[in-house]
Amino acid sequence: MAETLGIGILGLGTVGGGVARLLTEHAERLERRSGRRLEIRRVAVRDVEKPRSFSLSRNLLTDDPGQVVRAPDVDVVVELIGGIEPARTLIIEALDHGKHVVTANKSLLCEHGPELYERARRRERCIAFEAAVAGGIPIIAAVGQSMAANQLQSIEAILNGTSNFILTEMLARRASYREILAEAQRLGYAEADPTMDIDGTDAAQKLVLLVQLAFGTRITPSQFLRRGIDTLELADLLYADEMGYRVKLLAVARIVRGRLEVHVEPTLLRADRPIAKVDGALNIIALRGDAVGPTWFSGPGAGALPTASAVVADLVDIAVGRAQLTFPVLDLWRLNGGYELLDAEHIARRYYLRFNIEDRPGVLAEIAAILGRHHISIASVIQHEAPEIEDAAATPPPVPLVIMTHRTTEGQMRAAEAELQHLPALRPPHVRMPVSD
Amino acid sequence: MAETLGIGILGLGTVGGGVARLLTEHAERLERRSGRRLEIRRVAVRDVEKPRSFSLSRNLLTDDPGQVVRAPDVDVVVELIGGIEPARTLIIEALDHGKHVVTANKSLLCEHGPELYERARRRERCIAFEAAVAGGIPIIAAVGQSMAANQLQSIEAILNGTSNFILTEMLARRASYREILAEAQRLGYAEADPTMDIDGTDAAQKLVLLVQLAFGTRITPSQFLRRGIDTLELADLLYADEMGYRVKLLAVARIVRGRLEVHVEPTLLRADRPIAKVDGALNIIALRGDAVGPTWFSGPGAGALPTASAVVADLVDIAVGRAQLTFPVLDLWRLNGGYELLDAEHIARRYYLRFNIEDRPGVLAEIAAILGRHHISIASVIQHEAPEIEDAAATPPPVPLVIMTHRTTEGQMRAAEAELQHLPALRPPHVRMPVSD
Repeated sequence: MAETLGIGILGLGTVGGGVARLLTEHAERLERRSGRRLEIRRVAVRDVEKPRSFSLSRNLLTDDPGQVVRAPDVDVVVELIGGIEPARTLIIEALDHGKHVVTANKSLLCEHGPELYERARRRERCIAFEAAVAGGIPIIAAVGQSMAANQLQSIEAILNGTSNFILTEMLARRASYREILAEAQRLGYAEADPTMDIDGTDAAQKLVLLVQLAFGTRITPSQFLRRGIDTLELADLLYADEMGYRVKLLAVARIVRGRLEVHVEPTLLRADRPIAKVDGALNIIALRGDAVGPTWFSGPGAGALPTASAVVADLVDIAVGRAQLTFPVLDLWRLNGGYELLDAEHIARRYYLRFNIEDRPGVLAEIAAILGRHHISIASVIQHEAPEIEDAAATPPPVPLVIMTHRTTEGQMRAAEAELQHLPALRPPHVRMPVSD
Repeated sequence: MAETLGIGILGLGTVGGGVARLLTEHAERLERRSGRRLEIRRVAVRDVEKPRSFSLSRNLLTDDPGQVVRAPDVDVVVELIGGIEPARTLIIEALDHGKHVVTANKSLLCEHGPELYERARRRERCIAFEAAVAGGIPIIAAVGQSMAANQLQSIEAILNGTSNFILTEMLARRASYREILAEAQRLGYAEADPTMDIDGTDAAQKLVLLVQLAFGTRITPSQFLRRGIDTLELADLLYADEMGYRVKLLAVARIVRGRLEVHVEPTLLRADRPIAKVDGALNIIALRGDAVGPTWFSGPGAGALPTASAVVADLVDIAVGRAQLTFPVLDLWRLNGGYELLDAEHIARRYYLRFNIEDRPGVLAEIAAILGRHHISIASVIQHEAPEIEDAAATPPPVPLVIMTHRTTEGQMRAAEAELQHLPALRPPHVRMPVSD
């Protein structure tokens, strides 16, 4: 039996509490699966006096995180405070003191992955981050190890549970975005400030990590298309449903003619596709490998214990010694290598468009003419009959016009939109979503 | 860079050919991901002269498998000949000669797991078998490593693609079992002799491996309930559909009050459950862990390249050195330990029953009375009006009666059935399937 693995934890919030609970309440089974004991040696918290719902010796707590990353009896530092600083400095200090690092901090890795990984390589320590993407779904292990025989061709994923919950409930209950968001906040599915979830930032950060792992390409969220669900209306979900589609906040990375297409957008998927069927706060990742073909991984993408389950899996991996072997072969965040990004202008797909138009003859023809000039052909149109108005002399209210296009490029679509916005019969804004085929 | 990993392959059939293709055509990327070269050194085939669709030096081929397992330059033996002998003897010889072993041979592990694992431990070698369960889905890694923080509570899975293809197509095309089986054989989804697939043996063997890994319990397929899909009729799938259910050949292992409930049976699942939505030849495994909650893993359960993808993932794991660390901590097939099996009589669930009954008054009452005597209460009944018969004097043909029960035990259901079979108004056989809630 190897010696005990000493663990230091930075942050005892939702996930930190879950990790502490798993490590203390299931110490025996973790020892059996690791071949050695996993022992919490030091925990940095903001307030050492705060009452906690699980038992952890008061002596382990400190309000000085520096004590944790420097403690001689700590072998691994688990960083769960989030954000950029002081997390970045603490991780560097931990590595410099010879500690391995486990983190769930996607924004930090997104922004400072190269620096942190270079430091870890120099110190011959490892950084593990299973919990940073899709919570309880072991997607980092799947992409980094289980798919080793494959060149991944594509990743399509729902990586933000809050957005998926909102989209699911809007459709199921015919409710507005605002209404469901408020409820999600009441239920704890959405933060008090849900901006990062609903504007696609959270999903984009997770996608950045998957792209690094699967394709070796270093990107940042600012380099690719990102749209959130905050501008969607119930009407769009209902029109999609009418045509046999679901709308999901879809994170996509795929190889297209030797380049990497990356985006996070509300996207229409045929309702019979596995991703389209994943409802509520769950996440799903569809991987396509050149050997294995399509595979799907689904489960809870957030929450105290699911995320803690991923953190502790990393700790077991370090205790067994696997993570230390995996780290150098994955060789993440080297500056060179990987696929080059496909310019957003060249991304090709079908589009869903919804316009608010004046209810008079000829408007559809005007829109179709502009689309046609940009080589965008129309696959289908929905325009329901407008309700009768009592006062025949009044101006009729604008009516919705939904157009599904054939395949075109983002560039052509943008050019057409620039022209469409000068059309007097259109009442902005219009809605545009890509279709995943 | 560590030295080259020498690979010997036993068997160059469908999967073996896929493995050889991945190793030769993607040597460079495998080297990058393993930190060392993976090189085929010796391959045992039945006929060295047989033409092959991929390039492999004639010098590597031998028709003497003993040469492969004894070759000094072979570090890992990949066993892909299947069946019990000579696979068992060859694996033992390989271990005795200091080789690691990768195998996709579920029936061998089912039957001789304890012997082979004891031998591997004694020789300090490892046996890896990702490809033995669910082909391209990395479920062995997920259960053995990624879920390490959890005690798994349940496994529910579709582990046989042939059966799932047949059930899916029967319902989609309103066709008979025989009709679809014949087509599956034409398409290559079903073997010429599909017995093991459709009678549940294949799924049961895979479940035995998952149970060993997840619960530490050593069982054999003969110890638990196993029924196949070969007695199902289209009518049953349609009645299930009418009630909002799908029928799947479901492999189940779950902890119930400290004991392990295990069975493989055609089972009704509510149509909105993720497992129910997996159609065609795909596999899915739903794991429930006490920390992570529910997770799902889905993908191709068979096929040359998907299965080869799993074999090569094991080879990369050995090349990196991870598998050698995982092997002792998993500590599989020790004779002691694990949960005890729940006796089949005590398995509790709801049941779907279909009887063929004489079309006369009082029969439903007679059946209900017998069920009632065995404390089985009826949740719902479907009996559609019989078609009109021209000749009013003729004996009316038997009509189907479908009963959905409330929760009861397998033991009570069997006792009731023993009594029901004496009921003159019943035309045997009747159909019984459990419902998974």
